[in-house]
Amino acid sequence: MKPVNVGLLGLGTVGGGTAKVLSRNAEEITRRAGRGIRVVHAAARNIDSDNRPMGTEEAVLTNDAFEVVNNPDVDVVVELIGGYDLARELVLKAIENGKHVVTANKALIALHGNEIFTAAQEKGVMVAFEAAVAGGIPIIKAIREGLAGNRIEWLAGIINGTGNFILTEMRDKGRDFADVLAEAQALGYAEADPTFDVEGIDAAHKLTILASIAFGIPLQFEKTYTEGISKITSDDVDNAAQLGYSIKHLGVARSTEEGVELRVHPTLIPQRRLIANVDGVMNAVLVKGDAVGPTLYYGAGAGAEPTASAVVGDIVDVVRTLTSDPENRVPHLAFQPDALSDHPILPMEEIETAYYLRIHVSDKPGVIADVSRILADQQISIEAILQKEQPADADWVPVIMLTHRIREKQMNEAIKQIEALDTVKEQVVRIRLEALDSE
Amino acid sequence: MKPVNVGLLGLGTVGGGTAKVLSRNAEEITRRAGRGIRVVHAAARNIDSDNRPMGTEEAVLTNDAFEVVNNPDVDVVVELIGGYDLARELVLKAIENGKHVVTANKALIALHGNEIFTAAQEKGVMVAFEAAVAGGIPIIKAIREGLAGNRIEWLAGIINGTGNFILTEMRDKGRDFADVLAEAQALGYAEADPTFDVEGIDAAHKLTILASIAFGIPLQFEKTYTEGISKITSDDVDNAAQLGYSIKHLGVARSTEEGVELRVHPTLIPQRRLIANVDGVMNAVLVKGDAVGPTLYYGAGAGAEPTASAVVGDIVDVVRTLTSDPENRVPHLAFQPDALSDHPILPMEEIETAYYLRIHVSDKPGVIADVSRILADQQISIEAILQKEQPADADWVPVIMLTHRIREKQMNEAIKQIEALDTVKEQVVRIRLEALDSE
Repeated sequence: MKPVNVGLLGLGTVGGGTAKVLSRNAEEITRRAGRGIRVVHAAARNIDSDNRPMGTEEAVLTNDAFEVVNNPDVDVVVELIGGYDLARELVLKAIENGKHVVTANKALIALHGNEIFTAAQEKGVMVAFEAAVAGGIPIIKAIREGLAGNRIEWLAGIINGTGNFILTEMRDKGRDFADVLAEAQALGYAEADPTFDVEGIDAAHKLTILASIAFGIPLQFEKTYTEGISKITSDDVDNAAQLGYSIKHLGVARSTEEGVELRVHPTLIPQRRLIANVDGVMNAVLVKGDAVGPTLYYGAGAGAEPTASAVVGDIVDVVRTLTSDPENRVPHLAFQPDALSDHPILPMEEIETAYYLRIHVSDKPGVIADVSRILADQQISIEAILQKEQPADADWVPVIMLTHRIREKQMNEAIKQIEALDTVKEQVVRIRLEALDSE
Repeated sequence: MKPVNVGLLGLGTVGGGTAKVLSRNAEEITRRAGRGIRVVHAAARNIDSDNRPMGTEEAVLTNDAFEVVNNPDVDVVVELIGGYDLARELVLKAIENGKHVVTANKALIALHGNEIFTAAQEKGVMVAFEAAVAGGIPIIKAIREGLAGNRIEWLAGIINGTGNFILTEMRDKGRDFADVLAEAQALGYAEADPTFDVEGIDAAHKLTILASIAFGIPLQFEKTYTEGISKITSDDVDNAAQLGYSIKHLGVARSTEEGVELRVHPTLIPQRRLIANVDGVMNAVLVKGDAVGPTLYYGAGAGAEPTASAVVGDIVDVVRTLTSDPENRVPHLAFQPDALSDHPILPMEEIETAYYLRIHVSDKPGVIADVSRILADQQISIEAILQKEQPADADWVPVIMLTHRIREKQMNEAIKQIEALDTVKEQVVRIRLEALDSE
């Protein structure tokens, strides 16, 4: 089956990221979508054909975005230029031309979504916008499909990474708002004009979208109450912490009998809540459904590849719909049945993790040296040792060791030798340890 | 358009919950799916027609599950009886009869999924199983669709609520495994025979499914390494905590060049990770994609209505596919365009929240009394007061108050009066406070 042709509007951070992810993961994406996806046409303000982003090698480049939406070979238009007016015009033109549209543009959807969706409906094309809210977190899909059995009662989200970075730094380092903002601008987390982020307008765009799909109401950005974080002082952050709260810039939407609450403002939330511990530029959305109870979705809310993850997810959704019978739209195991891999499952001995060891040793000199020597012989480094004080008459004392990562078979050998020592009693207790970082 | 007819196999905890959620949320579900959904036939071991679960009022009840799968009026069979053999037979028969299938049965999918999916593919029917992993968390949809642009590198999940409840109690109360298990059994969190939960078999079923959809490999339950939590002592839990770790019963799947790791075992994880703070019966899955980075999905992993949430979400998925053109399968705003509601957006004055107030008062007797009186007159109760020590010569001191929930317009009035006091300087700083609990 011939590949689906994508036309990209914008080759900036997200546009470049999207081309790169489509290209780098082409093999897996094809196995999932049942069909190749290629960028055939891309528009950017400044074209540099000698310096193309990865994944646009085969594409025609132009600085006229209308060429892309009018190109009869383009099946899916991906709008990543941002802003309101030009983006609206391009998207409506693409729809008029019978093309499916994927966009990451929250402002566009929050302000012109009602008009765009009506046009798409009439024309029978898809408009997908997962990337418009919370970057790489598939929150639109979760609410619109995963929680479709629920009456959504309320949702609350940290949906602006810049604001969350600033509040996190204010708390962790006792710094002032203006000071942290300047740093965020230097780091590229905040725009030169930070109004959209710190005054909550960006969050209000996203909240408008979330509230509509949660409660089934039209998009009503203009009715969203919006208050920024620029007046929060580091004293407020301190006081809140002393009382057991974190201050987060939340978007809150709640459906009550009287009406719908739609509001973005700084908010104290109890530190014991998971969402109170979502720090730095990360985003999270807490959704309360009447059947499911509270659920939380966490991930990177911005950045080239996290946003591209959502854009490409939407493209795959469109391609799956174009490619399969409706009943087979999503393969049971995500990948097409004839594209499953025979990558082997590893036996446990071949797996590498770190370890917690509890060893009962006799309270005599030299035992720790013997154990450490056995570990060293198996190339196992010790990360930490914990030996608690024991009653004076205890003959056997537990020693706790944390090791660095090592293959399980080497640990098995070391444990066998340690258990053979006269100065070690009982079996060695071994619990695996995972840092779960983003290595 | 005529309603879609559901046949329920099983009217126990999850079956009863599913009928109840379908019935209670019928109006919203119809607005989302574009079509009514009704239970027309239900099978249970013991039928009590005088004591029907809510939502089965119109259904024919039977104790012969094959009657349901052979009923030509049934469009979607929902399998909630659990177990392997009978469930397999019923599901294969339903597929043979051309019915779509929704199941919450992790054992069935982990062991017989390859066979079932092949049969469904040949017959052109859908088999959906969101409820089989992590209860109400839409994790299958997130990985299979939302993250479809990523190469999934690894995932790690707390996917058995019973085990997590036991480990949480051991940590929080310093209790022993056997002791907590007995309590969990008394509370109904653990089965009389707890082997499936505490020895990790249930988690291994779920991990098998997650790994397949993450990496595109066939279901291979028999190759999953499985180790339970019954040998963890409260000393181990203590030692881990002292070193900065929590012990969680994790399912870990990782794709490496050599092969795929598939393992369920107790695991030390750093306390600073969000997933280390997922406590009690709650579940969470951390998924690392190459583009999106780490993402986390959190919610109730078991229970009647959380599981029903996933089952009904799957039914809506099936009904949307049966009802709409592929391009309009999921409405842009989740609800059908002609079913959006005109529920009003509330003005901010009508919203109720709790508040943090920072008031700069003159350091004289009676000021707190004046402020408290104004708050009381507006029906505002004070939850906490924080007044920090100030330099002896300070004329003005900040007083922090947390209030209970009150309507914003009453708070506005109170703040106006407080600011008018001679003994209060500057504007009162007000930050809203949300407990984000499951009221």
